[in-house]
Formats: sequence, C-alpha cells, structure tokens
Amino acid sequence: MSPISSPALHAGNSPYDRLKALGLTLPPAPSPIANFVTHIQEGHMLYLSGQGPREASGYLYTGKVGSDVSVEEAYQHARLTGINLLAVMQSALGDLGRVKQVVKLLGMVNAVPDFADHPSVINGCSDLLIDVFGEAGNHARSAVGFASLPGNITVEIEAIIALKN
Amino acid sequence: MSPISSPALHAGNSPYDRLKALGLTLPPAPSPIANFVTHIQEGHMLYLSGQGPREASGYLYTGKVGSDVSVEEAYQHARLTGINLLAVMQSALGDLGRVKQVVKLLGMVNAVPDFADHPSVINGCSDLLIDVFGEAGNHARSAVGFASLPGNITVEIEAIIALKN
Amino acid sequence: MSPISSPALHAGNSPYDRLKALGLTLPPAPSPIANFVTHIQEGHMLYLSGQGPREASGYLYTGKVGSDVSVEEAYQHARLTGINLLAVMQSALGDLGRVKQVVKLLGMVNAVPDFADHPSVINGCSDLLIDVFGEAGNHARSAVGFASLPGNITVEIEAIIALKN
Repeated sequence: MSPISSPALHAGNSPYDRLKALGLTLPPAPSPIANFVTHIQEGHMLYLSGQGPREASGYLYTGKVGSDVSVEEAYQHARLTGINLLAVMQSALGDLGRVKQVVKLLGMVNAVPDFADHPSVINGCSDLLIDVFGEAGNHARSAVGFASLPGNITVEIEAIIALKN
Repeated sequence: MSPISSPALHAGNSPYDRLKALGLTLPPAPSPIANFVTHIQEGHMLYLSGQGPREASGYLYTGKVGSDVSVEEAYQHARLTGINLLAVMQSALGDLGRVKQVVKLLGMVNAVPDFADHPSVINGCSDLLIDVFGEAGNHARSAVGFASLPGNITVEIEAIIALKN
Repeated sequence: MSPISSPALHAGNSPYDRLKALGLTLPPAPSPIANFVTHIQEGHMLYLSGQGPREASGYLYTGKVGSDVSVEEAYQHARLTGINLLAVMQSALGDLGRVKQVVKLLGMVNAVPDFADHPSVINGCSDLLIDVFGEAGNHARSAVGFASLPGNITVEIEAIIALKN
C-alpha cells in the first residue's frame, strides 16, 4: 500500500473531516455535457463518467500538457478533476462514508506526443482520493496520453468505486 | 436521467419493437479480428470488446475526425458501431430483453489533436442505445480522442452491460 | 472461442506447467511508479493497473510504434507486458490457479497517427495469456493507439480478471 503523508488523514475518521482539514468544499456535481449520465450504480459498484478540470463557475482548464500546460499546472487540474469526481459521488450516494474502496482510475492526459510524465499529473487526483478516503482511497490505475479531449481540456479521469453493503 | 425524445421509445416495450420502429435490422455479430473474443460474461456482467463502424458487407469507415471526417459523419459511424455492439449482445444473450442496464461506454474517436467535440460524435451510439433500451440504455461514459485506431477506423466503442438475473 | 495452437497448452493442466513449457520464469511484480497500487481485488474481481514492457532489470522499451519500433518488436513488448501482468497476478493471488477467467484487456499502443495494426501488437499479450491459461485466458479486448505513454514506453496494458470462489 502507498505511504500516506498528508496531515488530512489524521484530522478525523470521516471523509468530511478530511475534506475540511484540506480546506475543500465540494461543488455541485457537474451536469453531463451530452447524452449520458454522470454515474451508474450496478450492485455495489459505482461507475463514474469521465470528469474534467471544471471550476464551480463552469470555467474549464484547456491546452496540451507538455507544451501549453506544465506538469505542475496539470497536477492541479487532476486534483480539481478529483474534486468533481467526489462531487458526483456525493450526489450519487448522499454520503461519502458509503465508499468502501476506490477500485480503478483511468487517468487521461491531453498531452503532446513526446510527453512522458503522466503519472505525476494524475497523482493530483490520486493524492486527493487517498487523503480523503485513507486506505479506502488506494486504487489501481492507468495514466496515459490522449490525442485530444472534449473541449480541449487538459485532463479527464473516470473511476470505478466499490460501495459498502 | 437524460431526456429521451425519440419516437422509438413509444413504439413498444421490447428492444425489438424499438429496433423495428427505427427501421433497423441487426447484422450478424462481427468476428474478432485478432486473438480475442467479442465478449466475456462474468456473473451478471457482460464485457464487450471494442467494435467499430463496420457495415454488414465488411466495409469500414476510416479517417481522422476533424479533418477527413466531419462530426456529422462520425456521429453516423458511432451509431453504426452501436448497431454492431447490439449485434454482439444479441449473439451473446440470444435475447436483448435480458439487458438490465447499459452500464458504461468508452467512446474512442480517431481525431486530430485539436478536435474538441467527441461528445457529439459518441452520442451517435448513446442515442441509439437509449432509443433501443429506454431508461435501461442510460449509461456512464467517457468520449475521448485517440491518436490512432485499428485499420484507421474513425470510431471504436467498448461497453459494459448488466444483465437481468 | 479462439483457436489455440501453442504446444504450451498441451504441456499440463496448470498455468505453471504451461509457463515452464514456454521457458518462462515470472519476475517479481514491478513496483508502482506513482501514488497507486498494482491491483485491487473487489469481491471475486481483480483489477490490474496498467503494466509496461519492463525487463526484470528495470529496462523499459521505448519509442513510437510505426516509426521507431516495428510491429514485430512491439508484439514482443506486449508479450513482456503480459509477463509483468502475470507477475502481478502471482503476487496478488499467490497461485495463478485461482484465475477463473481473464475478462478484459485494454491494450494501449504508443503509435504514430497513421498506425493501423494495433491488434497484431496486442496479440503479444493475448497469445501469452491464452497459452498460460487455456480457455480461461480468452478475453474481451480493445487495442488502440495512444498519443503518448509514461516514460515513452511502446505499450501499456491493463486487465480485469475474474477469480474462482
């Protein structure tokens, strides 16, 4: 399992305590931008549609990582994407305490062809989920480069979440 | 849930009534083009391999969306891809009425690097599945841009389907 | 189901007999290169993080398939990636005999924009898994082209595996 160094983990036992310790407030879940839904729950598995680096105002961070956008900026965009995934979980579940395990992320980076540091970018989301959920935030993952993303956003991430019975 | 405007939904309660109202006949399921199978059922989940815009004749629509191929053309290719996914479901299940829920699509668009309208393309498949299955067709989704696809096809889509017990 | 021509299948009934017939020894499971884990088991499903063409020495095969790297070379890289996926399964499960079915692969090829033969590349992994597991190695799959991959590796593959009860 991954080492967890953030003070957030020690701030309390609930995801809400940890969000508070991180100074984060969840926005409303973004509405789908086309003919799909933000999530489907099937049995005790929750499948989340890809989310992007969208501010609560609707502003989207755009550009190619590795040229227009630095790794450090893209890390923050992946973190913001993680906040939006949390917002969808909150909307879907009513209680983030129902999350048993973050199972799998697909981290999609809108990158130039010679970009090589996708893992450092997607850590922006992974670090957040582990800070918020502790061990239950540990997940399998691929973090890879896409030729283009909707609206030219820098990062998109989809997730599979297991729920407590 | 997404609004559903197609008359197909009102044509009857079965997926076959809806296919008929849409004027659609399912082709045979395409054969795999390499060392894999078109689907694996595990428990009540059906995992479908990526399908493409293949006519029953074997003709494949090819090219880069955003330069060679317009969004409107690619929408039709995504719809044709959806027909092939339905053909695989029919072959796998024997009865489309066994579909409980379309859970998740990964919509892959073979697009130029500045392409931004992947959601409109993949709606070609999403609209079809919702027309055919009604509420059971609603799904989580990512619709994103790939650098290249097999045979230079314009669109490829894979799916996870939940089955009735 | 796919035809299986390798002599490995006839060498015995266990995955270990087949690995031996293939002359393969599994390396230790590679360590994650960022803040994620190599696998998550949820119920009887095992989700594997993307693995790459990494030699036990740590050496990574890099470059763009279709220009720097040939299909034949990339096939071998996909096979090596499959060996690393097997190494993770061994580490996760303690016994490859617990694998009920390889359910789904996502085969990611770091390819030039006009590359079209992704299926032949990813067969390097698919052929290996079918050789090692027999019918239980048959899987659903997508094999597609990515704009870039971590460390500029040629191939990355993630997997979903079903386990025996």
